[in-house]
Amino acid sequence: MTFEKIPYKIYLTEDEMPMNWYNVRADMKTKPAPLLNPATGTPMGFDDLRPVFCDELIRQELDNDTREIPIPQEIRDFYKMYRPSPLVRAYCLEEKLQTPAKIYYKFEGNNTSGSHKLNSAIAQAYYAKNQGLKGVTTETGAGQWGTALSMACSYLGLDCQVYMVKVSYEQKPFRREVMRTYGAAVTPSPSDTTSVGRAILKEHPGTTGSLGCAISEAVEAAASQPGYRYVLGSVLNQVLLHQSIIGLEAKAALDKYNIVPDIIIGCAGGGSNLGGLISPFMGEKLRGERDYQFIAVEPASCPSFTRGKFAYDFCDTGKVCPLAKMYTLGSNFIPSANHAGGLRYHGMSPVLSELYHEGLMEARAVEQTKVFEAAEQFARVEGILPAPESSHAIRVAIDEAMKCKETGEEKTIVFGLTGTGYFDMVAYEKFHNGQMTDYIPTDAELEASFAQLPKVPGQD
Amino acid sequence: MTFEKIPYKIYLTEDEMPMNWYNVRADMKTKPAPLLNPATGTPMGFDDLRPVFCDELIRQELDNDTREIPIPQEIRDFYKMYRPSPLVRAYCLEEKLQTPAKIYYKFEGNNTSGSHKLNSAIAQAYYAKNQGLKGVTTETGAGQWGTALSMACSYLGLDCQVYMVKVSYEQKPFRREVMRTYGAAVTPSPSDTTSVGRAILKEHPGTTGSLGCAISEAVEAAASQPGYRYVLGSVLNQVLLHQSIIGLEAKAALDKYNIVPDIIIGCAGGGSNLGGLISPFMGEKLRGERDYQFIAVEPASCPSFTRGKFAYDFCDTGKVCPLAKMYTLGSNFIPSANHAGGLRYHGMSPVLSELYHEGLMEARAVEQTKVFEAAEQFARVEGILPAPESSHAIRVAIDEAMKCKETGEEKTIVFGLTGTGYFDMVAYEKFHNGQMTDYIPTDAELEASFAQLPKVPGQD
Repeated sequence: MTFEKIPYKIYLTEDEMPMNWYNVRADMKTKPAPLLNPATGTPMGFDDLRPVFCDELIRQELDNDTREIPIPQEIRDFYKMYRPSPLVRAYCLEEKLQTPAKIYYKFEGNNTSGSHKLNSAIAQAYYAKNQGLKGVTTETGAGQWGTALSMACSYLGLDCQVYMVKVSYEQKPFRREVMRTYGAAVTPSPSDTTSVGRAILKEHPGTTGSLGCAISEAVEAAASQPGYRYVLGSVLNQVLLHQSIIGLEAKAALDKYNIVPDIIIGCAGGGSNLGGLISPFMGEKLRGERDYQFIAVEPASCPSFTRGKFAYDFCDTGKVCPLAKMYTLGSNFIPSANHAGGLRYHGMSPVLSELYHEGLMEARAVEQTKVFEAAEQFARVEGILPAPESSHAIRVAIDEAMKCKETGEEKTIVFGLTGTGYFDMVAYEKFHNGQMTDYIPTDAELEASFAQLPKVPGQD
Repeated sequence: MTFEKIPYKIYLTEDEMPMNWYNVRADMKTKPAPLLNPATGTPMGFDDLRPVFCDELIRQELDNDTREIPIPQEIRDFYKMYRPSPLVRAYCLEEKLQTPAKIYYKFEGNNTSGSHKLNSAIAQAYYAKNQGLKGVTTETGAGQWGTALSMACSYLGLDCQVYMVKVSYEQKPFRREVMRTYGAAVTPSPSDTTSVGRAILKEHPGTTGSLGCAISEAVEAAASQPGYRYVLGSVLNQVLLHQSIIGLEAKAALDKYNIVPDIIIGCAGGGSNLGGLISPFMGEKLRGERDYQFIAVEPASCPSFTRGKFAYDFCDTGKVCPLAKMYTLGSNFIPSANHAGGLRYHGMSPVLSELYHEGLMEARAVEQTKVFEAAEQFARVEGILPAPESSHAIRVAIDEAMKCKETGEEKTIVFGLTGTGYFDMVAYEKFHNGQMTDYIPTDAELEASFAQLPKVPGQD
């Protein structure tokens, strides 16, 4: 094979790296709905959020107007340790598929956390440190976010307490050890270190935990220790802001070679990667400058966009967090036990939910056996062994490229390759051994879950 | 912290990437000793090696004269998937150590095999494919080499059969699954698929295998299947040739900013990384153009340079491979059971052995608890979680930087960071839990091992 003049990988120089994050809310006509106090149902302001979140991060969370927010020098220095991330032209995949489509992916896995999560982890840790705090608390499921936060805290000399879903803590000891290498304290959740944990353990003695439960514990731990705040790796507006670095770099790399994408694809759990990747492109669409097709890809086993309700819901199981208006499957929804990898959160970023609600982006749900087929096909020609989460985007990118093969269209497809699957080999093993199965929740299951949505004034 | 004008990471552009490998043997006055036929003790020529190795690779193995060997276009295209690898200025480590030394590392871990092994794997697979072969066989211990070869074979559509040391096969299932993702057939060794395997199983029914034994099986498998050849990831001259891409890129990156290293450090097992990293610099030293201090770092539990004998020895346990003249601990030497990670081969590259014998480079042996201390210190400030093997080089780089702190010297240190430790978390866990121990072989153990060196004419 010979390569065209577009390089295999487009790297920005350090001079070309973004100096500001981009806040897509500034260009949205309808802003995402505000967070509500779960007890009173009233919008939460700066003072309401201070016991839980860092001051500067609350400002970012509530700021619907400032288009560009400067990235502090110390964060830009940290970014230089693993950024810019490459925008890769998938020449080998194109050849394998014999498609006229041009495929690019923005690869965020070249760092020890193995994913894009580090982009927001360092920002949140920085603002906590800057506020003079001692440490932060968080939850982690599969462990990417916990690892990223541990790395950021270790770099800044900040204490890091991670509540890790018990089943992951026990079955994924390697991620736990990576976090410990970076000095984090990792506690299996539910635990007896919090009152919410003790209550859950009392009610369900044999439980292996859930993300929603770990969030409740981490929030309580932050609120009950002086000098600590809670941080979260997805869903929140501030996280999408920090993750806009992905899209900004991708856009700068494309602009360098005058490439204009037709389709932009990202996997979606809470929306951190998808939101970050599409933000600057969505900004152009919102401002009427250029049109793009955006596709969010979610697991068929946790289909918040495609089968969820757009409604105010709890963000956690313990119901201690603010209510957010989002596409949700209900806060008690837990994907079936055969679901591998992340993208298992019941809700979705309020920003993305609003954009989806307005018809500005599409969503597709895919089954995991099809996702792992795409993952293996990609690995064999492109080298990188992708995370199960990222492979959702690969699946749809391949599907779209195959459509181009049928129609003969030379569309330019960009997708987000959020990370590597090195800590997901149990799932790959199941796939290799033919033991991986799919599960699609029934309508009755979802209706039962929706029935538990909170009563909020003005909401059905 | 603010950065000087030297960027955090120096990347070559695709235009700046090396077009040729560099063969350090061309500049050596005393060439490495030839491989000998284990049965007759006579030097092995092209025809003797053909049943086991690919033709073009034999030519490279025997070529002591050609200084520059062109890298075929298809290999250069594959290199573009994960190369150039960054030369990183360790600003954060320097600040942490408060040293006046300038530290750089050439990071080879940004690919799914997780190490530099892919540089030679793609070359060996390419020449096998080019010769019209069906497939290749090899052995792997911890799995880096087997993974790299699987990736290369999958890319080229070549069959790949890996004999994996049984204890690793069972205790490190994740590496095995990565290889399977790339379509390789992985067999635990010793196995009943070869006569040498069956003989070993009969004599030692409960054995968990060794690298030397897996080599014997892979060689037999190659020789007994039409259209197959054996390939090896270290020790051989051809491997050092392919790995010279590491040193060539590092040198080009340093030259771009007029940086001249004082000390170049690499970990050494069979010598593939160290040899590749230092080759072009050693060439300058051999030609009298410039002097450098080279330091090979090996485990105190497997100290072939610092305590081995420079002698002809078997390369494998089954004694089916050619004899090589090298620093060796004896082909029956196996590091103690508490040894974590790779760098466990009993011998050493004949090229590096000759250079060391002539006093052109130094060697140091370090204990693994000190190595993991350095690994953790590095991870916490530089982000990357290093492989145990690579961390040997980190240990000595830190030691040298601390000497500079004492003397005030502003030395420039370059070390090879060969890979990541994502599949070595069991070792990290032992270290965190205070369960990691050291072992240094006694003189009596080594003497007993040396007593079994083969009788070769002209050798004591």
